[in-house]
Order: sequence, then structure tokens, then C-alpha cells
Amino acid sequence: MDHKPLILVTNDDGMFAPGLKALVEVARVLGEVVVVAPDSPQSGQGHAVTLSDPLRLNPVNAFGEIPAYECSGTPVDCVKLAKHVLLNDRKIDLCVSGVNHGSNASINILYSGTMSAAMEAAIEGIHSIGFSLLDFSFDADFSAAQVYAREIMKWALEDGMVEAQLLNVNIPKLSVDEIKGIKVCRQTNGRWIEEFKEGLDPRGEKYYWLTGEFEVHDNGEDHDIWALENGYVSIVPSKHDLTHHKEISNIKAGLEAIQPSKVASV
Amino acid sequence: MDHKPLILVTNDDGMFAPGLKALVEVARVLGEVVVVAPDSPQSGQGHAVTLSDPLRLNPVNAFGEIPAYECSGTPVDCVKLAKHVLLNDRKIDLCVSGVNHGSNASINILYSGTMSAAMEAAIEGIHSIGFSLLDFSFDADFSAAQVYAREIMKWALEDGMVEAQLLNVNIPKLSVDEIKGIKVCRQTNGRWIEEFKEGLDPRGEKYYWLTGEFEVHDNGEDHDIWALENGYVSIVPSKHDLTHHKEISNIKAGLEAIQPSKVASV
Repeated sequence: MDHKPLILVTNDDGMFAPGLKALVEVARVLGEVVVVAPDSPQSGQGHAVTLSDPLRLNPVNAFGEIPAYECSGTPVDCVKLAKHVLLNDRKIDLCVSGVNHGSNASINILYSGTMSAAMEAAIEGIHSIGFSLLDFSFDADFSAAQVYAREIMKWALEDGMVEAQLLNVNIPKLSVDEIKGIKVCRQTNGRWIEEFKEGLDPRGEKYYWLTGEFEVHDNGEDHDIWALENGYVSIVPSKHDLTHHKEISNIKAGLEAIQPSKVASV
Repeated sequence: MDHKPLILVTNDDGMFAPGLKALVEVARVLGEVVVVAPDSPQSGQGHAVTLSDPLRLNPVNAFGEIPAYECSGTPVDCVKLAKHVLLNDRKIDLCVSGVNHGSNASINILYSGTMSAAMEAAIEGIHSIGFSLLDFSFDADFSAAQVYAREIMKWALEDGMVEAQLLNVNIPKLSVDEIKGIKVCRQTNGRWIEEFKEGLDPRGEKYYWLTGEFEVHDNGEDHDIWALENGYVSIVPSKHDLTHHKEISNIKAGLEAIQPSKVASV
């Protein structure tokens, strides 16, 4: 790359999350950095966009000379506003999202604001990487995540991604020396087994609060949760085409035979 | 099917959207119906889940003797609460979401609360169909949508879906007689070209309001927007595995060569 690359940094935990700071510290060494993050925690926001309300974008002094803006919307809104308003459609060389406090492996890519921000950038044609550390705590140690983020971002900026538009990177809760390396994997087949804690609010009205356990339904050794449980950083190349291609031919005959207008006219 | 099938009906436009009523009218003829819908419009909520707040679930008399509940959360929350709290993990034979007021073709499956509710049901192992009519208006004519929804749901309840877990069905703004039939397709390659309307609020503070035009980047004749523009109902079999499988081998060599712990120890 013959110019200083432009790197957009975002997340879903908000401007003052330690994971964002960890990622900005890596990005600032590799390029020109702009930070746009939500002004409130947006975990679990998925690919939500704000349609019915106006959005605000306010500069904050969070990282010294690096331009940083808080956005009142979702992580996806942050990316849209960054690209179209703040950067005025300037070419963004790389978008990085995170480092998320907690795993986004398996289907959590769908629920995750961190990964949805990265996916939105990918939809816009920007090479994009979401990083997540398997440690929910505010005091999590991001040093191994930083080392791997730096190497993966360097690889991406040297045109390593080519056709890959979006990477879902998860880092185990281990030191750099303990991590065995990187595994490029597929998304684990698994799901949340929900539980709702029922309670009564101070007025005596019933409420439900979501909790649950994640259950892996996958015996393979080529998926992201397997990699993480075995001491590797997992990377799943991901995409926004949700077509279940092999089902097209399976259901075509049955469905295309349906002709209500002809049935109705008989 | 030797018992009366249990059909969960949901949407993202809320309990009193005419599109929901249209879908309930179809479902009640085909099985035992339970309705759980958001208590406020949730368009564009994508796969958001409510993690930081309690949820409410209140019975409403919206459809006579059919049990109907308003949920304070997102469309995905509606499905989780319906399955685990309201129906106590009883087997749901089919989940239908919609009829959405407006298209969910192409990548709108990602932004859509309607489709995310349907996808959540699919993740839970329930055959699931999202229906959307290409007409945003409150007074939209749902009669063709109802005719096609009935035939597609009958097919699904007769075990037509087999391995397909999720269908994204869009109906053109045409009469039953004008619609040429059904096309089973892939998701159109396209994206929103965003625009933000800037304004000043009554206090003189700047705001941005999202708008935009959808742009198709696809010359095929086998994708959903092509089908809709040519007078067909489009059906895209969809899935929640977002792995870009063919990229795994493309990026494996470059990424798995990264060994920061070894570099650091040199």
C-alpha cells in the first residue's frame, strides 16, 4: 500500500470500553485512524438500523489527536454515518470492530453489534474484521488480542483479504505464549438454549429477563468453537449472502407448481 | 400431519399492523394459532435481542379467541419468549412472520425485524417463513399476499420444507391474476446507497436522518429482485450459517502462517 491506509475503528460496547482502546492502539501504528462508536452500550443489537429517529454525531476527546465521534445509534448506524457523513465517501482501506468483551463465535455473529458493524462495512465494499476476546470482564487482558489484531490487520492491509470481505476473529482467554496460533474455520453449528428469569418489578408487575447457555451441535474439528477450546485464535470468513443455495433445487418443483391464480379461475 | 398444527405468528410492525391481521386470517384456517408481536414498531431492528432490560408479555384481545400477546422487546425477543415462556417449549410446527409492509428482498433480510424473527425460529429448529408485500402503505391490499401465503403455508405444513429451515417470501404489488407464479431464487446482490438528511432540531442541534436508494448490482435472472420486477412471488431459501466457505482455503495459508508467539520469542 503506497499511501497511509485509512482505518475506521468501531465497536458495540461504546467509546470508553477498554477493548476499543486496545484496538485503537494497534490501528494508530498501522494507519490514519477515525473512531466512531456508539454513545451507549449496544451489545446484542445485531444488524439494527435507526429508521424512525434522527441520529447525532458528536466529537469526543477520547484518544488524543485521533478523531473520535460518538453516535447516538446502533453499531451499523456508526458505520453508515462514518462512511457517508464524516468521511464523505472517502475510500476506507480497512474497518475493524471491537475488541468485543466476550465471544462472537458461531451464530453469535448474528446477534452481535460488533460483527454487524463489521458486516455493514463489508456490504459497503470495505475489507472488514471484527475482533472479540473470550472474556466479558471490564478488566480483561487485551494484550494477546492486540498482538494478533496487529498481525491480522497488517496481513489484511497488504491485500491478504482479496475476495474475503469480512472476518470474524475470536481470541481465547490465554496469554500470547499459550495461544497455539490461528485456525481459519467455518462457523460452529450451535445455538442458545434460552432461559427467562421471571421476576416481579417494584410495582408487582411480572417481567422476564433473558439468559441461557450456549449449546454446540457440532462434532467437527474445523469450526470456530473447536479452535477456541483448543487454544487457537479462530477466524471465520463470513458473508452477507444468506441464500441456502443447495435448497433452491430441492424446493423449486414443489413451490413453483403453486399457481393460485389458475386454481382460483378453475 | 395427523394433528392440528401449531402455528406461531409474529411480525415487526406490531400487533395492529394490517399485515399481521392478514397473516392471522390465513393461519387460523390451517392450524392452532398463537400470536406474539412487538408492542411498538420494530422495523429495521435486525437480529437485535434485549439483554440489558427486562421484557414484558401482555395478553391483548386483538383477534377474538386467538391467543395474542404483546411483547416489549424486539421481533427476535418475541420468538424466544413465545417458545420458551408462553408455549413452554411445545413443538411449534410452523412460524410465520409478517406480512411485512415493504420489501425484504436482497440483503434487507439482514436489516429486517420480520425476517430476523423468522430466522430466530429457524435457529430454534422450527420451519419458518417470512412474508413481505412490496407496498409500504397502511392501506396496502394484502389479498394476493394472503392467497400465496395460504398455498405456501399449506405446502410447508405438508412437509414440503424438509431440510429448508427458512424462506424469505416477497410478494409484488399486483393482483392475484397479475402475478405470474412463484420463483425460487437466490438473494440479489445489491445494497443501499445511503444518504443522510441533515437538519437542525428545535434547540439548534444538528441531526442526521437515514434515507437512501437501493441499488442492484446483479445481472442475473435467478435472484429475488429480478423475480419481483418480472411479476413473480420470490422465495429465497435462507440460512444462518454465514461462513464464506470458499474463502476458507483462499486465506488459510496466509493467516495460519502468523505465529506472533514465535516472532516474539526470536
